[in-house]
Amino acid sequence: MDPAGVRRVFAEAKEGRRDFLRSAFAAAAAGVAAAGVRAAPAPADGDPNILQLPEHSRALGQAVALNDGYGKPSKYESNVRRRQSPGLTQTDQASVSFAPLQSLFGIVTPSGLHFERHHQGWWDIDPSKHRFMINGNVKTPKVFDMDEIMRLPSVSRFHFIECGANTAMEWGNVAVPTVQYTHGMLSCSEFTGVPLITLLQMAGVDTRKNRFVLAEGADGAAQTRTIPMELVESGEVLVAYGQNGEMLRPEQGYPLRLVVPGVQGVSWIKYLRRVKVGDMPFGARDETIGYVDLMPDGQHRQYSSIQECKSVVTTPSGGQVLLDKGFYNITGLAWSGRGKVSRVDVSVDGGRNWRTARLQGPVMSKCLTRFSLDWVWDGRPAIIQSRAIDETGYVQPTRPQLRAVRGTRSTYHNNGIQSWLVQENGEVKNVQVS
Amino acid sequence: MDPAGVRRVFAEAKEGRRDFLRSAFAAAAAGVAAAGVRAAPAPADGDPNILQLPEHSRALGQAVALNDGYGKPSKYESNVRRRQSPGLTQTDQASVSFAPLQSLFGIVTPSGLHFERHHQGWWDIDPSKHRFMINGNVKTPKVFDMDEIMRLPSVSRFHFIECGANTAMEWGNVAVPTVQYTHGMLSCSEFTGVPLITLLQMAGVDTRKNRFVLAEGADGAAQTRTIPMELVESGEVLVAYGQNGEMLRPEQGYPLRLVVPGVQGVSWIKYLRRVKVGDMPFGARDETIGYVDLMPDGQHRQYSSIQECKSVVTTPSGGQVLLDKGFYNITGLAWSGRGKVSRVDVSVDGGRNWRTARLQGPVMSKCLTRFSLDWVWDGRPAIIQSRAIDETGYVQPTRPQLRAVRGTRSTYHNNGIQSWLVQENGEVKNVQVS
Repeated sequence: MDPAGVRRVFAEAKEGRRDFLRSAFAAAAAGVAAAGVRAAPAPADGDPNILQLPEHSRALGQAVALNDGYGKPSKYESNVRRRQSPGLTQTDQASVSFAPLQSLFGIVTPSGLHFERHHQGWWDIDPSKHRFMINGNVKTPKVFDMDEIMRLPSVSRFHFIECGANTAMEWGNVAVPTVQYTHGMLSCSEFTGVPLITLLQMAGVDTRKNRFVLAEGADGAAQTRTIPMELVESGEVLVAYGQNGEMLRPEQGYPLRLVVPGVQGVSWIKYLRRVKVGDMPFGARDETIGYVDLMPDGQHRQYSSIQECKSVVTTPSGGQVLLDKGFYNITGLAWSGRGKVSRVDVSVDGGRNWRTARLQGPVMSKCLTRFSLDWVWDGRPAIIQSRAIDETGYVQPTRPQLRAVRGTRSTYHNNGIQSWLVQENGEVKNVQVS
Repeated sequence: MDPAGVRRVFAEAKEGRRDFLRSAFAAAAAGVAAAGVRAAPAPADGDPNILQLPEHSRALGQAVALNDGYGKPSKYESNVRRRQSPGLTQTDQASVSFAPLQSLFGIVTPSGLHFERHHQGWWDIDPSKHRFMINGNVKTPKVFDMDEIMRLPSVSRFHFIECGANTAMEWGNVAVPTVQYTHGMLSCSEFTGVPLITLLQMAGVDTRKNRFVLAEGADGAAQTRTIPMELVESGEVLVAYGQNGEMLRPEQGYPLRLVVPGVQGVSWIKYLRRVKVGDMPFGARDETIGYVDLMPDGQHRQYSSIQECKSVVTTPSGGQVLLDKGFYNITGLAWSGRGKVSRVDVSVDGGRNWRTARLQGPVMSKCLTRFSLDWVWDGRPAIIQSRAIDETGYVQPTRPQLRAVRGTRSTYHNNGIQSWLVQENGEVKNVQVS
């Protein structure tokens, strides 16, 4: 607007002609905006000032607090969703949905995209009716309601959770197409709750004699798992009600879930209703029939519940396409059930040469760590791998190293190095490097 | 089940009578479960084994990957929502919705509950059509599409964002009822994006001569703000596309937003379409008409955009009710636009005595920090306050200290100590301690 125009705007405004003020300001905004967007569509609109502007730069948008005051992702992101693997399980309730790792950033998994693994479907349990009991070898068995738990001292911590069966298909020669299906039973959240040891102490536990607890869920599966008292005593095991700032989601055990950092997901009992204290492992159903590692000699390994150090490149990964040569930011996730990740190496030639990746801070214990590495793709085939090392010095094994010890018939605890082949046409696929 | 029952289950299973197997397992689960829940409702059901069990412990639940593969909170949490303050603004588009701080845990704000502040409503902009331009005093003006930005080296960082007008009502003698309305223009996320300095360097910026940039949004408000080059050079200012692991939400500027850690929210330009480089502040509309501090002498203070050290107790807080005497976990949030929070003190007697609260790690720079303190309420009236100190040594001022310097006619940048009165009946209300 020229100076005369400005004077006119203020004169009109004084007289209360707000409509004019609005349109004048819109025109001013349009003048600024036209410089900003080169390729904006030209709407069929009479006003020459706004010819170059998309609608969102010249009209009134949406109001606040829509959708019952709870926001949703963009409609353009509908492809970013958790996915069930067709045919993997016989029912949709005793099933799995995988997190879309290929589309995620940083380390926090949005709760709406957190992977699901149910043994008998999920429930939305009324928290006013939910109770949590401590019994077994304690002086005074206790029953807590949610109000009683939520007024106790709480902590909040960032931790990953990984299903023991994550990456299971890679044991065989089935190279499933995307990182969502190879590694998507992995998520990471800020959990809030009361350390289990606090509640056990209220019940008068004697931890010298009683080295195990049994945790039990209130869903139809009545999922039960033995947890070593050593982990409970560390203060790390939480009776959690919060996840990523809000109450747990129903699929994640609302209103109460056991958080067992570093341990496979099946032990993070959802809909937690009971912890029983005992002096030996409980040998629950899923500690004997499932979640055991079949070894090459035909025996199976039990109580192997710590998730060992592991990593995976999420971009570029299977199903993605590199559109042309040039710079790319190779990025992925690393984690260890034994503590912090100390280093991640990345290879673009199938493991012959390795470069050390950048780790994004803060690097937290038993939490995902985001790594990245600059890479200029020359257009030739490349096999991309990552190898994580944790603070204990443990090095993530190659696929052949893992098979030499564990054989090929396991379902659980596959932490081998993942290989992605970038083909000449830019298409990325899952390959198994022997 | 007795041993005979077990034998029968396995015999039936071998014959393929899966239905029997299922019901037998359900009965076994029921036996375990009945011990766990004391007060479960007794359904009118013929099977004596499941008389004591709620439906969720004996039936098949919901399937995975429902709701288009994107989960939602529990139906019992519908009260946890962002809320518009009735009558605060003339339209619902140039308005505010506040985050429900009283119901949140830890430091991450769920994206669905992140506060909203729009100047002309929000849009869901097609990312394939969005462009980001760098122009002004640069060698080579640049236009980027989203693909070009997303392949560059990125970082992920946790930061708070606070509207400069947060806690504005407390300047007057209007004690709004809840912490959602007093402090709810505050949220915290993990943001992912490209440091702005990287993009400016690609355009050939000379930062010795050019000490300011103008950032501009593509919504109807064409929101524009001056950012000092000093902040950009630090690498902290991001051209962000990710928030809490996924793409930005539409209300937060999808697909591109400027992240300016420590600075008031209005500078975190949403729908970012342009950064212009210059050698002096740009004096944009909202740097002259709005977002200025009216001082006691009638002058106004401009470019006061850093959010100074501040804290607030979120539980107990206005509108909550303590049901009885006894133990409570006093908890709240502290933050500083100048770096890390180094200490938080809490008073339960209106500021006469202070105790140092526990800080939940990791304590990150320009990020929310959760604090908590054990408290045994004796049933008498108590005035609860928190006082944060940051790593520069700055101490959050009392309300009278703040007013002595700033007067009472400001709208912006109120970081005074908040007081909550716990009444004898347990009801908590906002009070202004003079």
